[in-house]
Amino acid sequence: MITVLRLGHRFERDKRISTHVCLTARAFGADNVVFDVRDERVEDSIKRITDEWGGNFKVDFTDNAKKFIKNFDGIKVHLTMYGLNINDVIDEVIKKFEKEKNLLIIVGGQKVDAEIYFIVDYNIGIGNQPHSEVAALAVFLDRLFKGEELKRKFNGKIEVIPKEKGKEIIRK
Amino acid sequence: MITVLRLGHRFERDKRISTHVCLTARAFGADNVVFDVRDERVEDSIKRITDEWGGNFKVDFTDNAKKFIKNFDGIKVHLTMYGLNINDVIDEVIKKFEKEKNLLIIVGGQKVDAEIYFIVDYNIGIGNQPHSEVAALAVFLDRLFKGEELKRKFNGKIEVIPKEKGKEIIRK
Repeated sequence: MITVLRLGHRFERDKRISTHVCLTARAFGADNVVFDVRDERVEDSIKRITDEWGGNFKVDFTDNAKKFIKNFDGIKVHLTMYGLNINDVIDEVIKKFEKEKNLLIIVGGQKVDAEIYFIVDYNIGIGNQPHSEVAALAVFLDRLFKGEELKRKFNGKIEVIPKEKGKEIIRK
Repeated sequence: MITVLRLGHRFERDKRISTHVCLTARAFGADNVVFDVRDERVEDSIKRITDEWGGNFKVDFTDNAKKFIKNFDGIKVHLTMYGLNINDVIDEVIKKFEKEKNLLIIVGGQKVDAEIYFIVDYNIGIGNQPHSEVAALAVFLDRLFKGEELKRKFNGKIEVIPKEKGKEIIRK
Protein backbone atom coordinates (compact mmCIF):
# COMPACT_ATOMS: atom_id res chain seq x y z
CA MET A 1 0.00 0.00 0.00
CA ILE A 2 1.49 3.31 -1.10
CA THR A 3 0.12 6.66 0.05
CA VAL A 4 1.30 10.02 -1.27
CA LEU A 5 0.91 13.01 1.05
CA ARG A 6 0.80 16.25 -0.94
CA LEU A 7 1.67 19.19 1.36
CA GLY A 8 0.97 22.88 0.86
CA HIS A 9 -1.43 22.86 -2.09
CA ARG A 10 -2.28 26.49 -2.88
CA PHE A 11 -5.85 26.82 -4.13
CA GLU A 12 -5.17 29.73 -6.50
CA ARG A 13 -1.99 28.43 -8.10
CA ASP A 14 -1.64 24.67 -7.76
CA LYS A 15 -4.75 23.13 -9.29
CA ARG A 16 -2.96 21.76 -12.35
CA ILE A 17 0.27 20.75 -10.60
CA SER A 18 -1.68 18.93 -7.87
CA THR A 19 -3.76 17.20 -10.55
CA HIS A 20 -0.54 16.06 -12.21
CA VAL A 21 0.74 14.82 -8.83
CA CYS A 22 -2.42 12.70 -8.46
CA LEU A 23 -2.39 11.33 -12.02
CA THR A 24 1.28 10.47 -11.69
CA ALA A 25 0.72 8.77 -8.33
CA ARG A 26 -2.06 6.68 -9.89
CA ALA A 27 -0.25 5.80 -13.13
CA PHE A 28 2.98 4.84 -11.30
CA GLY A 29 1.38 2.52 -8.79
CA ALA A 30 0.41 4.52 -5.66
CA ASP A 31 -2.96 3.78 -4.04
CA ASN A 32 -4.03 7.23 -2.90
CA VAL A 33 -3.03 10.87 -2.47
CA VAL A 34 -3.83 12.72 0.74
CA PHE A 35 -4.02 16.54 0.69
CA ASP A 36 -3.74 18.92 3.63
CA VAL A 37 -5.85 21.51 1.75
CA ARG A 38 -9.17 20.43 0.29
CA ASP A 39 -9.75 21.20 -3.40
CA GLU A 40 -12.83 19.62 -4.96
CA ARG A 41 -11.74 20.66 -8.45
CA VAL A 42 -8.74 18.33 -8.18
CA GLU A 43 -10.80 15.54 -6.58
CA ASP A 44 -13.43 15.78 -9.35
CA SER A 45 -10.95 15.68 -12.19
CA ILE A 46 -9.19 12.63 -10.71
CA LYS A 47 -12.54 10.91 -10.19
CA ARG A 48 -13.42 11.45 -13.86
CA ILE A 49 -10.12 9.87 -14.94
CA THR A 50 -10.46 6.90 -12.58
CA ASP A 51 -14.07 6.26 -13.67
CA GLU A 52 -12.92 5.93 -17.27
CA TRP A 53 -9.43 4.50 -16.97
CA GLY A 54 -9.95 2.13 -14.05
CA GLY A 55 -8.19 1.19 -10.84
CA ASN A 56 -9.00 1.92 -7.19
CA PHE A 57 -7.07 5.14 -6.79
CA LYS A 58 -8.47 7.59 -4.20
CA VAL A 59 -7.97 11.23 -3.22
CA ASP A 60 -8.27 11.89 0.52
CA PHE A 61 -7.81 14.76 2.96
CA THR A 62 -6.27 15.28 6.40
CA ASP A 63 -6.64 18.36 8.58
CA ASN A 64 -3.42 17.57 10.45
CA ALA A 65 -0.55 16.53 8.22
CA LYS A 66 2.05 16.18 10.98
CA LYS A 67 -0.20 13.92 13.02
CA PHE A 68 -0.95 11.96 9.84
CA ILE A 69 2.77 11.40 9.29
CA LYS A 70 3.47 10.52 12.92
CA ASN A 71 0.59 8.01 13.01
CA PHE A 72 1.44 6.39 9.68
CA ASP A 73 2.35 2.73 10.14
CA GLY A 74 5.12 2.07 7.62
CA ILE A 75 8.16 3.62 5.94
CA LYS A 76 8.04 7.41 5.62
CA VAL A 77 9.92 9.03 2.75
CA HIS A 78 10.06 12.78 2.14
CA LEU A 79 11.10 13.75 -1.40
CA THR A 80 13.19 16.93 -1.19
CA MET A 81 16.11 18.40 -3.13
CA TYR A 82 17.93 18.74 0.22
CA GLY A 83 17.88 15.01 0.92
CA LEU A 84 20.26 12.15 0.18
CA ASN A 85 20.62 11.30 -3.50
CA ILE A 86 18.18 8.56 -4.53
CA ASN A 87 21.02 6.70 -6.27
CA ASP A 88 22.61 6.15 -2.86
CA VAL A 89 19.55 5.04 -0.87
CA ILE A 90 17.00 3.43 -3.19
CA ASP A 91 18.27 -0.13 -2.67
CA GLU A 92 17.83 0.19 1.09
CA VAL A 93 14.30 1.63 0.67
CA ILE A 94 13.33 -1.19 -1.72
CA LYS A 95 14.49 -3.80 0.83
CA LYS A 96 12.51 -2.15 3.64
CA PHE A 97 9.44 -1.82 1.43
CA GLU A 98 9.57 -5.55 0.61
CA LYS A 99 9.36 -6.25 4.36
CA GLU A 100 7.04 -3.51 5.63
CA LYS A 101 4.66 -3.22 2.61
CA ASN A 102 3.34 0.21 3.69
CA LEU A 103 5.00 3.31 2.32
CA LEU A 104 4.22 7.01 2.75
CA ILE A 105 5.73 9.38 0.17
CA ILE A 106 5.60 13.06 1.11
CA VAL A 107 5.88 15.74 -1.57
CA GLY A 108 5.77 19.44 -0.82
CA GLY A 109 5.45 22.65 -2.75
CA GLN A 110 7.55 25.77 -2.23
CA LYS A 111 7.89 25.74 1.57
CA VAL A 112 7.87 22.66 3.75
CA ASP A 113 7.83 23.05 7.54
CA ALA A 114 11.27 22.22 8.99
CA GLU A 115 9.82 19.63 11.39
CA ILE A 116 8.80 17.39 8.47
CA TYR A 117 12.47 16.59 7.78
CA PHE A 118 12.78 15.13 11.29
CA ILE A 119 9.61 13.02 11.56
CA VAL A 120 10.31 10.86 8.47
CA ASP A 121 12.62 7.87 7.95
CA TYR A 122 14.23 9.21 4.76
CA ASN A 123 14.72 12.59 3.13
CA ILE A 124 15.51 11.71 -0.48
CA GLY A 125 16.57 14.00 -3.31
CA ILE A 126 15.81 13.05 -6.90
CA GLY A 127 19.03 14.87 -7.51
CA ASN A 128 19.76 18.09 -5.62
CA GLN A 129 18.63 20.64 -8.19
CA PRO A 130 15.28 22.48 -8.10
CA HIS A 131 12.71 20.85 -10.40
CA SER A 132 9.23 19.47 -9.80
CA GLU A 133 7.30 17.40 -7.27
CA VAL A 134 5.65 15.66 -10.25
CA ALA A 135 9.03 14.64 -11.68
CA ALA A 136 10.33 13.59 -8.26
CA LEU A 137 7.33 11.39 -7.53
CA ALA A 138 7.42 9.73 -10.97
CA VAL A 139 11.12 8.88 -10.83
CA PHE A 140 10.93 7.68 -7.22
CA LEU A 141 8.07 5.26 -8.03
CA ASP A 142 9.72 4.14 -11.28
CA ARG A 143 12.90 3.29 -9.36
CA LEU A 144 10.97 1.62 -6.53
CA PHE A 145 9.09 -0.69 -8.90
CA LYS A 146 12.00 -0.98 -11.38
CA GLY A 147 9.71 -0.10 -14.30
CA GLU A 148 7.22 -2.89 -13.59
CA GLU A 149 4.54 -0.30 -12.67
CA LEU A 150 4.28 0.68 -16.34
CA LYS A 151 2.97 -2.78 -17.30
CA ARG A 152 0.18 -2.80 -14.72
CA LYS A 153 -3.43 -3.28 -15.96
CA PHE A 154 -6.13 -0.90 -14.67
CA ASN A 155 -9.19 -2.67 -16.18
CA GLY A 156 -10.87 0.59 -17.12
CA LYS A 157 -13.57 1.34 -19.66
CA ILE A 158 -10.85 2.69 -21.93
CA GLU A 159 -7.57 1.03 -22.75
CA VAL A 160 -4.75 2.15 -25.04
CA ILE A 161 -3.30 -0.30 -27.55
CA PRO A 162 0.37 0.81 -27.73
CA LYS A 163 1.28 1.78 -31.30
CA GLU A 164 4.35 2.76 -33.29
CA LYS A 165 2.43 5.53 -35.10
CA GLY A 166 -0.96 7.08 -34.42
CA LYS A 167 -3.52 6.30 -31.71
CA GLU A 168 -5.61 3.24 -30.93
CA ILE A 169 -7.93 2.78 -27.98
CA ILE A 170 -10.55 0.19 -27.10
CA ARG A 171 -13.74 1.00 -25.18
CA LYS A 172 -15.40 -1.74 -23.18
CA MET B 1 22.87 17.48 -27.14
CA ILE B 2 19.29 17.02 -25.99
CA THR B 3 16.48 19.38 -26.98
CA VAL B 4 12.96 19.22 -25.56
CA LEU B 5 10.17 20.60 -27.76
CA ARG B 6 7.17 21.62 -25.67
CA LEU B 7 4.05 21.78 -27.86
CA GLY B 8 0.77 23.53 -27.20
CA HIS B 9 1.60 25.71 -24.18
CA ARG B 10 -1.57 27.61 -23.23
CA PHE B 11 -0.76 31.06 -21.88
CA GLU B 12 -3.66 31.20 -19.41
CA ARG B 13 -3.35 27.71 -17.96
CA ASP B 14 0.11 26.25 -18.44
CA LYS B 15 2.57 28.67 -16.88
CA ARG B 16 3.41 26.46 -13.94
CA ILE B 17 3.33 23.13 -15.81
CA SER B 18 5.58 24.52 -18.54
CA THR B 19 7.94 25.89 -15.89
CA HIS B 20 8.09 22.41 -14.35
CA VAL B 21 8.78 20.94 -17.81
CA CYS B 22 11.75 23.32 -18.18
CA LEU B 23 13.14 22.74 -14.67
CA THR B 24 12.83 18.99 -15.13
CA ALA B 25 14.52 19.13 -18.53
CA ARG B 26 17.40 21.10 -16.99
CA ALA B 27 17.78 18.98 -13.84
CA PHE B 28 17.66 15.69 -15.77
CA GLY B 29 20.29 16.61 -18.34
CA ALA B 30 18.60 18.25 -21.35
CA ASP B 31 20.28 21.29 -22.90
CA ASN B 32 17.29 23.39 -23.88
CA VAL B 33 13.52 23.57 -24.21
CA VAL B 34 11.90 25.01 -27.33
CA PHE B 35 8.31 26.34 -27.12
CA ASP B 36 5.90 26.92 -29.99
CA VAL B 37 4.14 29.65 -27.95
CA ARG B 38 6.21 32.43 -26.46
CA ASP B 39 5.76 33.09 -22.71
CA GLU B 40 8.24 35.47 -21.13
CA ARG B 41 7.02 34.62 -17.63
CA VAL B 42 8.32 31.06 -18.08
CA GLU B 43 11.55 32.25 -19.72
CA ASP B 44 12.20 34.70 -16.87
CA SER B 45 11.63 32.21 -14.10
CA ILE B 46 13.95 29.67 -15.74
CA LYS B 47 16.60 32.35 -16.25
CA ARG B 48 16.45 33.22 -12.54
CA ILE B 49 16.97 29.56 -11.61
CA THR B 50 19.83 29.06 -14.06
CA ASP B 51 21.57 32.27 -12.90
CA GLU B 52 21.63 30.94 -9.34
CA TRP B 53 21.92 27.19 -9.79
CA GLY B 54 24.25 27.07 -12.78
CA GLY B 55 24.52 25.23 -16.08
CA ASN B 56 23.98 26.37 -19.66
CA PHE B 57 20.31 25.52 -19.99
CA LYS B 58 18.33 27.68 -22.46
CA VAL B 59 14.69 28.35 -23.31
CA ASP B 60 14.05 28.98 -27.01
CA PHE B 61 11.12 29.52 -29.36
CA THR B 62 10.06 28.33 -32.82
CA ASP B 63 7.17 29.71 -34.86
CA ASN B 64 6.89 26.47 -36.86
CA ALA B 65 7.07 23.33 -34.73
CA LYS B 66 6.56 20.86 -37.58
CA LYS B 67 9.32 22.39 -39.66
CA PHE B 68 11.50 22.40 -36.53
CA ILE B 69 10.92 18.65 -36.10
CA LYS B 70 11.45 17.85 -39.78
CA ASN B 71 14.72 19.84 -39.88
CA PHE B 72 16.08 18.42 -36.62
CA ASP B 73 19.29 16.45 -37.25
CA GLY B 74 19.14 13.52 -34.81
CA ILE B 75 16.78 11.04 -33.19
CA LYS B 76 13.21 12.29 -32.73
CA VAL B 77 11.18 10.88 -29.85
CA HIS B 78 7.58 11.86 -29.09
CA LEU B 79 6.43 11.02 -25.57
CA THR B 80 2.77 10.01 -25.72
CA MET B 81 0.53 7.61 -23.80
CA TYR B 82 -0.45 6.10 -27.17
CA GLY B 83 3.11 5.05 -28.00
CA LEU B 84 5.12 1.88 -27.45
CA ASN B 85 5.91 1.15 -23.80
CA ILE B 86 9.30 2.61 -22.82
CA ASN B 87 10.25 -0.73 -21.23
CA ASP B 88 10.20 -2.30 -24.69
CA VAL B 89 12.13 0.35 -26.65
CA ILE B 90 14.50 2.21 -24.32
CA ASP B 91 17.50 -0.07 -25.00
CA GLU B 92 17.22 0.59 -28.73
CA VAL B 93 16.93 4.36 -28.17
CA ILE B 94 19.99 4.35 -25.87
CA LYS B 95 22.04 2.56 -28.53
CA LYS B 96 21.00 5.03 -31.22
CA PHE B 97 21.69 7.98 -28.92
CA GLU B 98 25.21 6.70 -28.22
CA LYS B 99 25.85 6.83 -32.00
CA GLU B 100 23.91 9.91 -33.10
CA LYS B 101 24.44 12.17 -30.02
CA ASN B 102 21.55 14.51 -30.93
CA LEU B 103 18.12 13.81 -29.50
CA LEU B 104 14.83 15.69 -29.76
CA ILE B 105 12.18 14.87 -27.15
CA ILE B 106 8.69 16.15 -27.95
CA VAL B 107 6.13 16.60 -25.17
CA GLY B 108 2.63 17.87 -25.79
CA GLY B 109 -0.28 19.08 -23.73
CA GLN B 110 -3.91 18.05 -24.18
CA LYS B 111 -4.09 17.83 -27.99
CA VAL B 112 -1.19 17.01 -30.28
CA ASP B 113 -1.66 17.30 -34.06
CA ALA B 114 -1.96 13.83 -35.63
CA GLU B 115 0.87 14.53 -38.08
CA ILE B 116 3.41 14.70 -35.22
CA TYR B 117 3.07 10.94 -34.67
CA PHE B 118 4.27 10.33 -38.23
CA ILE B 119 7.23 12.71 -38.49
CA VAL B 120 9.16 11.27 -35.51
CA ASP B 121 11.31 8.15 -35.15
CA TYR B 122 9.63 6.90 -31.97
CA ASN B 123 6.31 7.41 -30.22
CA ILE B 124 7.00 6.25 -26.66
CA GLY B 125 4.57 5.83 -23.79
CA ILE B 126 5.80 6.14 -20.21
CA GLY B 127 3.10 3.60 -19.62
CA ASN B 128 -0.23 3.94 -21.42
CA GLN B 129 -2.25 5.70 -18.72
CA PRO B 130 -2.96 9.45 -18.65
CA HIS B 131 -0.57 11.32 -16.35
CA SER B 132 1.78 14.24 -16.90
CA GLU B 133 4.27 15.54 -19.45
CA VAL B 134 6.51 16.47 -16.51
CA ALA B 135 6.50 12.88 -15.20
CA ALA B 136 7.00 11.47 -18.69
CA LEU B 137 10.00 13.68 -19.43
CA ALA B 138 11.64 12.95 -16.05
CA VAL B 139 11.32 9.18 -16.32
CA PHE B 140 12.42 9.13 -19.96
CA LEU B 141 15.62 11.08 -19.17
CA ASP B 142 16.28 9.05 -16.01
CA ARG B 143 16.06 5.84 -18.05
CA LEU B 144 18.15 7.28 -20.89
CA PHE B 145 20.99 8.27 -18.54
CA LYS B 146 20.45 5.32 -16.15
CA GLY B 147 20.39 7.66 -13.15
CA GLU B 148 23.79 9.21 -13.90
CA GLU B 149 22.13 12.57 -14.65
CA LEU B 150 21.37 13.00 -10.95
CA LYS B 151 25.08 13.15 -10.07
CA ARG B 152 25.88 15.89 -12.58
CA LYS B 153 27.45 19.14 -11.26
CA PHE B 154 26.00 22.49 -12.37
CA ASN B 155 28.64 24.79 -10.85
CA GLY B 156 26.09 27.36 -9.73
CA LYS B 157 26.27 30.09 -7.10
CA ILE B 158 24.21 27.80 -4.87
CA GLU B 159 24.82 24.14 -4.18
CA VAL B 160 22.96 21.70 -1.94
CA ILE B 161 24.89 19.49 0.44
CA PRO B 162 22.74 16.33 0.57
CA LYS B 163 21.63 15.64 4.13
CA GLU B 164 19.82 12.93 6.06
CA LYS B 165 17.81 15.53 8.03
CA GLY B 166 17.36 19.26 7.49
CA LYS B 167 18.81 21.56 4.84
CA GLU B 168 22.32 22.64 4.00
CA ILE B 169 23.40 24.84 1.10
CA ILE B 170 26.63 26.57 0.20
CA ARG B 171 26.80 29.93 -1.60
CA LYS B 172 29.86 30.74 -3.65
